[in-house]
Amino acid sequence: MERSIGIGLLGAGTVGGTLVSRLIGDAEAISSKTGLTFDVRRVGVQNLEKQRPFSFTPGLLTDQLEEVVDDPSVDLVVEVMGGLDPAGDLILRALEAGKPVISANKELIAARGPELIAAAEKSGVPFLFEAAVGGGIPIIRPLSETLAGEKIDRVLGIVNGTTNFILTQMSEQGAAYDVALKEAQTLGYAEPDPTADVSGADAAAKAAILASLAFGTWVGIGDVYHEGIEAITAVDIGFAEDFGYVVKLIGVCERVEAGISARVHPAMIPLDHPLAGIRGATNAIFIEGPTIESLLFAGPGAGGDPTATAVLGDMIDAARETLAGAQVAPRIRFSPGELVAFEDVSTEWYVRLIVDDKPGVLAKIASGFGDAGVSIRSVWQEGGETKADLIVVTYPAPERAQREALRSLSTIDEVTDIGSVIRVLGPSR
Amino acid sequence: MERSIGIGLLGAGTVGGTLVSRLIGDAEAISSKTGLTFDVRRVGVQNLEKQRPFSFTPGLLTDQLEEVVDDPSVDLVVEVMGGLDPAGDLILRALEAGKPVISANKELIAARGPELIAAAEKSGVPFLFEAAVGGGIPIIRPLSETLAGEKIDRVLGIVNGTTNFILTQMSEQGAAYDVALKEAQTLGYAEPDPTADVSGADAAAKAAILASLAFGTWVGIGDVYHEGIEAITAVDIGFAEDFGYVVKLIGVCERVEAGISARVHPAMIPLDHPLAGIRGATNAIFIEGPTIESLLFAGPGAGGDPTATAVLGDMIDAARETLAGAQVAPRIRFSPGELVAFEDVSTEWYVRLIVDDKPGVLAKIASGFGDAGVSIRSVWQEGGETKADLIVVTYPAPERAQREALRSLSTIDEVTDIGSVIRVLGPSR
Repeated sequence: MERSIGIGLLGAGTVGGTLVSRLIGDAEAISSKTGLTFDVRRVGVQNLEKQRPFSFTPGLLTDQLEEVVDDPSVDLVVEVMGGLDPAGDLILRALEAGKPVISANKELIAARGPELIAAAEKSGVPFLFEAAVGGGIPIIRPLSETLAGEKIDRVLGIVNGTTNFILTQMSEQGAAYDVALKEAQTLGYAEPDPTADVSGADAAAKAAILASLAFGTWVGIGDVYHEGIEAITAVDIGFAEDFGYVVKLIGVCERVEAGISARVHPAMIPLDHPLAGIRGATNAIFIEGPTIESLLFAGPGAGGDPTATAVLGDMIDAARETLAGAQVAPRIRFSPGELVAFEDVSTEWYVRLIVDDKPGVLAKIASGFGDAGVSIRSVWQEGGETKADLIVVTYPAPERAQREALRSLSTIDEVTDIGSVIRVLGPSR
Repeated sequence: MERSIGIGLLGAGTVGGTLVSRLIGDAEAISSKTGLTFDVRRVGVQNLEKQRPFSFTPGLLTDQLEEVVDDPSVDLVVEVMGGLDPAGDLILRALEAGKPVISANKELIAARGPELIAAAEKSGVPFLFEAAVGGGIPIIRPLSETLAGEKIDRVLGIVNGTTNFILTQMSEQGAAYDVALKEAQTLGYAEPDPTADVSGADAAAKAAILASLAFGTWVGIGDVYHEGIEAITAVDIGFAEDFGYVVKLIGVCERVEAGISARVHPAMIPLDHPLAGIRGATNAIFIEGPTIESLLFAGPGAGGDPTATAVLGDMIDAARETLAGAQVAPRIRFSPGELVAFEDVSTEWYVRLIVDDKPGVLAKIASGFGDAGVSIRSVWQEGGETKADLIVVTYPAPERAQREALRSLSTIDEVTDIGSVIRVLGPSR
């Protein structure tokens, strides 16, 4: 069976352009390995004038995006334009028309996943999004298919390359945050406006998708607490190393007693943890479960080439199923489940306080934690002339209690500043 | 859609037993996540008397293995008995009867893969074997599906936990090979007869499967050169560390100029290579390609629980496709390709010679390599009273030339012994 699949491409930026070159350049290899040929029949872009000069056949390119979806010669729609609008409605339109859709759009999937997945299920066509998390790392398919029979306990992800690059530079070069960010921008790892990356918002969309697939309960982007790396200082990274930790921006998806928690925040992880060695812009996902123990997936988390490879894998998969001519069942179903508010999740804290180096200050601080119901695991003081860095690491306690303790600390006269708060990630519960 | 799938199980050992407990214990979770229920309808074992006391309903268990395959209530056959016979013919019988088959049998797939895959293709049913390589690590599906559009350059695998455990003990505890092997046996990581593991034969079957899927050209078990770890000494592991390397038993699948090479041998890999940190019985697969750069997959490579999870993932996948009622296309097609004999593959060698510490010996050794066309990268001599360890690391040269050099070295009077030969694995070509 050798069949040509008509592709409608939405978006022709870095990923779209790379994909088109690959479909042309590797056509023979793809065909010999899969028996499929892909023929790009329409390419939709939002702004024709801004379009980079890919040598598209005249008539291929359009800014009438619905035309791409509606074109009867388009069998399969590939959305690599990003953003919520108009990508979401275009995908819905394609799925409702019974066309399989491949998307790399984490933001959209985290926002409208259930609606789009339901539309795909109703039409019996695949809706695949391997490229939405972890770029070129195969993670969506292993998580939702290979591990479908595993009761996953926890997924930890370094799912944003920009922030991991910045933290790696801060850790290995002792660079300040601003300096490391500038370097990331110069090297093209960070956007001119880096907010989506450094605030943890990008990672939160990915954590929402990972949690949903891992636990089979839909977790929306609004359910994921996120905190960025803007406040991380080289001082804290130094202390972390002294204590045997490294600071990473981690997406944490876990099953806790009361339900499911998904969140993104900087975390200290032990130096011997497999994620501790993930350097630079590399991404990695670490999955823990009762039977698989732990699995590590690591690789390039972004970039046109790896992302296009992930999209292409989905295209091959979808084409295979579609050519079989059957109504395919969805790969995962979601059931209702309890989502736990971040305030109710227990975490361990590292708190660095700047204090006046006077007798009695430690007792007051200890009371502040104790009154809030937070137990202290260890205390470390590093003195200056009159001011000292006082570091407290707590035992696990609900965020709510930890924050209450922090509020009471800020009222202590001798505490002149709260330098920083970083959560400490322990072993699996 | 809620459908019950009738399972025929071939083999009820560790993996089969674990699988049955999981199908019962996790039935509700599996059903809510996938919409499927699995009902074990027949269980075939070769020896009823040896059968461990699983509480199978009377009539479920049989030693008439064809009955399991032929039972009309069996929709899907799961083969976890291992070995070539009778597993191979039973699987063929099931596929020819249009029943999907899941197998964890690396030996069989490496031996009869093309025949079984062709039978599955002819009947339009899935034949899946995620558990055959890397146990609980999802690697078959990512390699054959997600990366179907990637022209993979090289796959390196630590795919045998027993040997990795032994080498880790030798490296970290300075244990001798025999001591580490005994420890592995005591802990259940090695069989009483450890030959299949320590000889590299087990890893060779897995390397054959990895190479076949990575390159889309079938590589049979007989095409994979293999060499075990029996001759590795703590002395060599010590030298390796001094030079910044660690010794691992590696399955190497690579595209070289003349074609495809797949082989298994102990190799020195640089300490900063992602595979260098894979300790104990853990398995890992490292994939290199032009667009994905490098991907690492790591996790438990064996054991009833992880293997059963991989089998279960395949069962869910196959059931999904089968319920769609379509003739499904195979996930990968194989094309003819050139396989390169190991003698023609270029490798770097570490050679440790025991020599009489006399003037002129180095010149003779250098000539031995030079005459065979092998260039020396570095030489290190560590003297004793009259005997010295002389270590030579070469530049890449065809195995044939390296072996010729070794033969000529053995004729030099001052070379009293050839201590060991270990290949050195460089960066991707």
